[in-house]
Amino acid sequence: MPGAGKTAIGRRLAARLGLPFRDADAEIEQAAGMPITEIFARYGEPHFRDGERRVITRLLAGPPLVLATGGGAFADPLTRSAIQASGAATVWLKCDLPILLRRVAGREHRPMFLNADPVQVLQRLMTARHPFYAEAEVTVTCTDESPETTTRRVQDALDASVPPRRLPVGLGDRGYEVLVGPGLLARAGGLIGPVLPARRVVIVTDESVGPIHLPTLRAGLAAADIAILAEIAVPPGEASKDFSRLHGLLEAMLGAGVDRRTAVVALGGGVVGDLAGFAAAVAMRGLPFVQVPTTLLAQVDSSVGGKTGVNLKAGKNLAGAFHQPRIVLADTDTLATLPARELRAGYAEVAKHGLLQGPLWEWCEAHGARAVAGEADALTHAVLESCRLKAAVVAADEREESAEGGRALLNLGHTFGHAIEAEAGFDGSVLHGEAVGVGLGLAAALSARLGHCSQEWPSRVIAHLAACGLPARMADLPRGFSVDALLGRMAKDKKNRDGRMRFVLMRAPGDCFTSSEVPAEEVARLLRDEGAT
Amino acid sequence: MPGAGKTAIGRRLAARLGLPFRDADAEIEQAAGMPITEIFARYGEPHFRDGERRVITRLLAGPPLVLATGGGAFADPLTRSAIQASGAATVWLKCDLPILLRRVAGREHRPMFLNADPVQVLQRLMTARHPFYAEAEVTVTCTDESPETTTRRVQDALDASVPPRRLPVGLGDRGYEVLVGPGLLARAGGLIGPVLPARRVVIVTDESVGPIHLPTLRAGLAAADIAILAEIAVPPGEASKDFSRLHGLLEAMLGAGVDRRTAVVALGGGVVGDLAGFAAAVAMRGLPFVQVPTTLLAQVDSSVGGKTGVNLKAGKNLAGAFHQPRIVLADTDTLATLPARELRAGYAEVAKHGLLQGPLWEWCEAHGARAVAGEADALTHAVLESCRLKAAVVAADEREESAEGGRALLNLGHTFGHAIEAEAGFDGSVLHGEAVGVGLGLAAALSARLGHCSQEWPSRVIAHLAACGLPARMADLPRGFSVDALLGRMAKDKKNRDGRMRFVLMRAPGDCFTSSEVPAEEVARLLRDEGAT
Repeated sequence: MPGAGKTAIGRRLAARLGLPFRDADAEIEQAAGMPITEIFARYGEPHFRDGERRVITRLLAGPPLVLATGGGAFADPLTRSAIQASGAATVWLKCDLPILLRRVAGREHRPMFLNADPVQVLQRLMTARHPFYAEAEVTVTCTDESPETTTRRVQDALDASVPPRRLPVGLGDRGYEVLVGPGLLARAGGLIGPVLPARRVVIVTDESVGPIHLPTLRAGLAAADIAILAEIAVPPGEASKDFSRLHGLLEAMLGAGVDRRTAVVALGGGVVGDLAGFAAAVAMRGLPFVQVPTTLLAQVDSSVGGKTGVNLKAGKNLAGAFHQPRIVLADTDTLATLPARELRAGYAEVAKHGLLQGPLWEWCEAHGARAVAGEADALTHAVLESCRLKAAVVAADEREESAEGGRALLNLGHTFGHAIEAEAGFDGSVLHGEAVGVGLGLAAALSARLGHCSQEWPSRVIAHLAACGLPARMADLPRGFSVDALLGRMAKDKKNRDGRMRFVLMRAPGDCFTSSEVPAEEVARLLRDEGAT
Repeated sequence: MPGAGKTAIGRRLAARLGLPFRDADAEIEQAAGMPITEIFARYGEPHFRDGERRVITRLLAGPPLVLATGGGAFADPLTRSAIQASGAATVWLKCDLPILLRRVAGREHRPMFLNADPVQVLQRLMTARHPFYAEAEVTVTCTDESPETTTRRVQDALDASVPPRRLPVGLGDRGYEVLVGPGLLARAGGLIGPVLPARRVVIVTDESVGPIHLPTLRAGLAAADIAILAEIAVPPGEASKDFSRLHGLLEAMLGAGVDRRTAVVALGGGVVGDLAGFAAAVAMRGLPFVQVPTTLLAQVDSSVGGKTGVNLKAGKNLAGAFHQPRIVLADTDTLATLPARELRAGYAEVAKHGLLQGPLWEWCEAHGARAVAGEADALTHAVLESCRLKAAVVAADEREESAEGGRALLNLGHTFGHAIEAEAGFDGSVLHGEAVGVGLGLAAALSARLGHCSQEWPSRVIAHLAACGLPARMADLPRGFSVDALLGRMAKDKKNRDGRMRFVLMRAPGDCFTSSEVPAEEVARLLRDEGAT
C-alpha cells in the first residue's frame, strides 16, 4: 500500500542480505522514459500493467535481488501469477489505516489522492487489494517502530518461513493441490482464496478441534477477506458420521444462506472431513469443498481422494459421494496437538502406504518411530510421501473402477481391519488405525501362507508396527474375536464383487495386488491360529 | 431353443408374408461344405460362431426375408449386436420345458443330447439363454396349438409391435438412451438387461403407481432373469422428497443386500425418480440407476438429465446429486392411466420445451390440445421431442455451469413458477406444472415489458396454455399471492448468482436467454398488474 514502506524496508533488507535492491516503479519509468503518471494518462492502466509485468518478470528471472513492487502489481492476477511462478519469496508489509494516513501526508499531489479524501482512497484500495496481498508468503504487520526494527522482523519472518510443499492430484478439471507444511492455518485465506469461486465459506469442525484451531483459521481467512457464513461444530467421534447429523448439517448450511459459490471448509479429522465433504457434495447438488485435516490419519489418508460419506446400519461409509476438494491444507503444526495414541493410529496408514509404495517402507523402518514420537521433520516426510502415493493411485482410478489393483489397493490391511473395527463396535476401544495395524499384520501373514511372499516377511511387518507402538497381532488388542463373526463381516465388505471376498495381498514392499481367489477356509485357519475362537 | 419350431413357424410366416425363408444353420453347412457337428468337432465353437455371424450378417444385409437362427446365435453377444444393428425385427418363440421335451424326443442322436439327460440339457440352455432371448422385439409364447395358429399369432404380434424410439443423451462415458414408445414395461428386462452390470435390481415406486404398473414390470424383468432384491414403495406426493425418507430408503436398500453392481429402478413420477435417483447416487457412493417414468411430467422432463434430490426446509431440491441413469424407459402406455389434471400439468413442460426449441412450439399450437386430451400419437410426439430438446441441452451443459444460457434455460417459467408453488405450500392446490403454466405466462409478459419480444406475444402464449386447460395467469389459480412474498421467494432461488435474481426471457420461440439484469421493481410491477397484492 502507499506508505507501507516498501522502499525504506526494501533497501535495508537488501543491505542486510547483501543483495541489490530494485524498485519496480523506478525501473518502469526508466524503461518507458516517462513518469508513471504520464504512462497512466497517455496509455491507460492496462497498458501500464502489461509493461509492469514485463519489467517484474525480467528482474525476477535475473540474479537474486530484493524487489519492491507498486501495490497494484501484486493485485493484478497475471502479474501475481508471474511472481508466484518465479519462485520468489513474497512479503506483505501490512499497515493499518492510521499509520498509512500519517505516512502519505504530504503526498496529496499524487494522482491517486488528487481531489479525493485520502481515507476513502486508502480504504477502497485496502478492500480491493488485501485479499490478494494475503497470498504473500510472509506477512509482517508494521507499526510505528523504526524501519530497522521492521526490517529485522521481515528478515526473521523470511528465515522462519517454510513454503508449503505442493503435491498435484492429477484429475483433469477436478485436479487440485495438497499443500503440506507448517503454519498453513494462519495463511489459509491466501492459500485457498485463489481456488474459491467466491470469498464465502462455511466451516465445519468438531467440538474438540474447534477450540484449538478455529481462532487461527478465522484470522487466516479474515486476512484474505473471506467471509465465514457459519461455523458448525459436531461432536467428535465416529457417531457423528450419521445420516441425521448430515441432515442437520445441511439444514444449518442452507439456513446460513450458502449459495452455489459458497465453499465448505472441513477443519478436523476424518470424521469431520467425511461428513462435511458429503454435505458439500449434495448441498445444492455440489458446493466447492476445502479439506483442512488436523489429524495424522486425515492428513495421510482421508483428506485426499474425494471419498466422503456417513455410516448406515449395514456398515461404515455406505452412503456417500466422490467429491474432490478444491485444495487440501495439511498444516503439520496441528499434529503437535494430537494425543500420542491418535498419532500412532494415524501412522498405520503411513505404514500401509509404505508397503504399497516400496521405498517409503524402507523409510518407515528407518524413521517411522521418530514420526510416531512427534518429530516434525519425520511427520512432514510421512505426510508428504503418503499424499504423493495416494494422489498417484487416486489419479489413476478415481472411482475405484479398475478390475484389478487401482484404488482398491489402498484397502491393504482393511478387509481384516474393518471387520475387527466393526466387531469392536466403534466405541474407542480399538481405533481405526489400530485395527488397520492388526490388519496389515494379518494381510502379511495371509500372503505368506498363500506363498506370495517369504515366510519371514510377516514378522518384519509386525516388528515394525510394534516398534511404532501399534498393535500388529490380534493378541495385542484388548479383546478377543470370533472367527465366524469376523468372516461374516468380511463377507459383507463393500469391496467384494459378486459375493466373493476381496483381499489385497503382498509379494514385497511396492508389489501388492488384489485377489478374489482366497479360500475362506485359509482365512479362517489364519484367524484361529492368531487366537480368534 | 431346440424344438421351439423355428423352421416350422418360420416357413409358414415367410409364406404368409410373401418373403423367402432361410435357415441360418443350413446356410452355414452349405458355406462350410460340412455338417455343423463336424465344424464344431474340427474347429471348436468360437470358430463356428464367427462363421455363423458372417452368414447371418450377409443374409440380413440382403433383400427382406424370414430368417431362422440357431438358438446359440442370439445368445452370442456379437451376433446379437449384429442382428439388432441390422434393424431386423426379432421374434422369440418361447416354449416351456414339457413342450420342448416332447418335441425333441427322437433327437437323442444329436450331439447336444448324447450321453446326457435332455431335461438337464434344456434347463441349462434355458437358464443361460433366456435372459438374452428377452431382448427380442417380440416374444410369442408357444403352446401345443397348431403351427398355423402360432404363425398367425407371430404375424399379429409383429403387426402390433412398435419398436421404441431411441434418443441418445450424449454425455460420453455417462451417455445413455431414452426409449420412448408403448409396451416398454412388459419388455423392461430385455431393454435394460444390456446396460446393467449385473442382473439384480431394487425397485422404488410409490403406493399409487406400484399397484398399477409393478406387475407388468416384474414380469418384464423376470423374462430376462433379472432378480428383484426389494420393492420399496413410498407414499405418493412431494412430501416423500424428504431427507428422513431418503435415509429410510437407503437403510432398506442396504438391508436388502444390494452391492455395487445392483441397479436402482425408479418406477413412477418425478418424486419417485428424484428420491430413488438420489438414493442411487449416494448408496455405496453410486449405484447404477434406471428411470421408468410413468407420468407425463417425468417422461418429458425430470427423468432425463440426471438431476436428483430431496427438499430441505430452505427450499425444493436443495440436497441432491447429478446422477445420470443408465437408460430411461418412457412407456407411453402408462400415460393412459393418469388423471386428466396431472396430464395437463405435465404438458406445461412440453409447452416450455416448445418455447425453447421453436418448431416444437408450432406443433404445440397445432396439436398440444390433442396430447392433453390423451391421444396416444400426440403424447408420443410430445414426449419424444421434449426428450430430444432436453437431451441436447443436458449434453451441452450437464452440471449447469454455463455462464449464460445452457441448462439454466430449462428454468424458463420456473423462477416465477417455483415461487408460486412454494407460496401455495405443496398441498396439491397448485401442481408444479400449473405453477409453471402461470410462470410461462409471466415470463412472456416480463419479456414483452422489457422490450425483448412483441407486445402481442404474451397473449399468444397464454391463449395456448388456456386452450390446453392450463392456468396461464395468476388469476387462473385458486388463491391469491402477495408481491413481497413472491419476490422474497424469487430472491432465494438457487439459480441466482451472487444474490441477483436470474430470469429466462424470450425473444421468440426458439430464442430464449438468461438474464440477471431484470430490475426487481419491474417484476414487482408485473406481479401487481397481474393481481398480486
